[in-house]
Amino acid sequence: MPGIALSELAPHDRYKLLCGVVVPRPIALVTTLDENGAVNAAPFTFFNGFSVDPPLVVLGLQHKPDRSPKDTTRNIHRDGEFVVRMVDEALSNAMNACAIDFPSGESEVEAAGLATLPSVDVGVPRLAAAPFALECRRHVVLARSRAAGRRSAAASCPRRLVNKANMHVNIDAYRPIGRMFGNLYSTQRDTFTLTRESHAQWLARFGLATSVEEAQ
Amino acid sequence: MPGIALSELAPHDRYKLLCGVVVPRPIALVTTLDENGAVNAAPFTFFNGFSVDPPLVVLGLQHKPDRSPKDTTRNIHRDGEFVVRMVDEALSNAMNACAIDFPSGESEVEAAGLATLPSVDVGVPRLAAAPFALECRRHVVLARSRAAGRRSAAASCPRRLVNKANMHVNIDAYRPIGRMFGNLYSTQRDTFTLTRESHAQWLARFGLATSVEEAQ
Repeated sequence: MPGIALSELAPHDRYKLLCGVVVPRPIALVTTLDENGAVNAAPFTFFNGFSVDPPLVVLGLQHKPDRSPKDTTRNIHRDGEFVVRMVDEALSNAMNACAIDFPSGESEVEAAGLATLPSVDVGVPRLAAAPFALECRRHVVLARSRAAGRRSAAASCPRRLVNKANMHVNIDAYRPIGRMFGNLYSTQRDTFTLTRESHAQWLARFGLATSVEEAQ
Repeated sequence: MPGIALSELAPHDRYKLLCGVVVPRPIALVTTLDENGAVNAAPFTFFNGFSVDPPLVVLGLQHKPDRSPKDTTRNIHRDGEFVVRMVDEALSNAMNACAIDFPSGESEVEAAGLATLPSVDVGVPRLAAAPFALECRRHVVLARSRAAGRRSAAASCPRRLVNKANMHVNIDAYRPIGRMFGNLYSTQRDTFTLTRESHAQWLARFGLATSVEEAQ
């Protein structure tokens, strides 16, 4: 079973491999407020509970390809508050719309036609659609330098599970299970696809012009 | 949609609620070495990728009910190394055996009849059974005091989704989805149960005597 040195992969391949291996991931649809009071929403899957006493969740906020922070990151840094909305089957298309690369300042919540409600304890509204919302306050920020990864260790990836040419995981050979609660576990055999649109594709679908730079 | 103040719940109820809401969770079967070189294995589901540049995973290591650290926590604090084994359908029963409360110093890996292999970059062996293994070195430890949770905020839990008497989540009404990779998502409709045994139950199943205290 050959090892792959994660630190030697290009970041994009490393992302693909880690996302293919660490499955299934819970989905947090995170709302924040921007500096003008507009509600921002974006899905994150480097997310989980971290402890219960005290109750903490952890959120891995990636950067944009140009290393600038995402809107969610900037808003949480400034404001310290965010609401995590869990995603159910009914919310999946709206969640996917919130993953579109809308320009900063343009509200994904409005674009996706999602209604909001006031939260109980934080200033950031929560999405009205079911199911659960976790109102959160920033507790600790971990900002890591890229150099921190230099000593990263190997991932063992059986040849039958990963195509090393493109880092695609063979899910039919992998058959991972997920943890629910109590005595309950889930297979990951019942899957579906959602295609993420670019902002230009989204505009085109509504017959809208995109910005001059994109249209040229 | 009433809010539940997480900080006002008893820790056990808070754990049940957080585990019922944040689903599906990926499962890390974590191997470590104890001070005598025995291989310890235990499953953790407060686990996920955290960043790719540098490549980091996050592991929420809970304490035992008496607030003493679990073997995995003690070993990672001392040794700084651990291996995360992802759990597939074939490994699920062995993973469940590793969740038994074996006395410290007794190897779950031996008890579950799991073979190990040397790792590539760390001293901790990995489990031989498929699928993926991530060899890890401790990077940052976050030790939180219980007081840190005093300002924790609310969870919005629709009445149809949570029985507030026992904090049980109604999974048929919830219908959460999980994130796989690429364009792939998973429903959580295909579930199965695994019953966690106590150490005494495990011993009894093999006709073995338990300790004097337990046998009396």
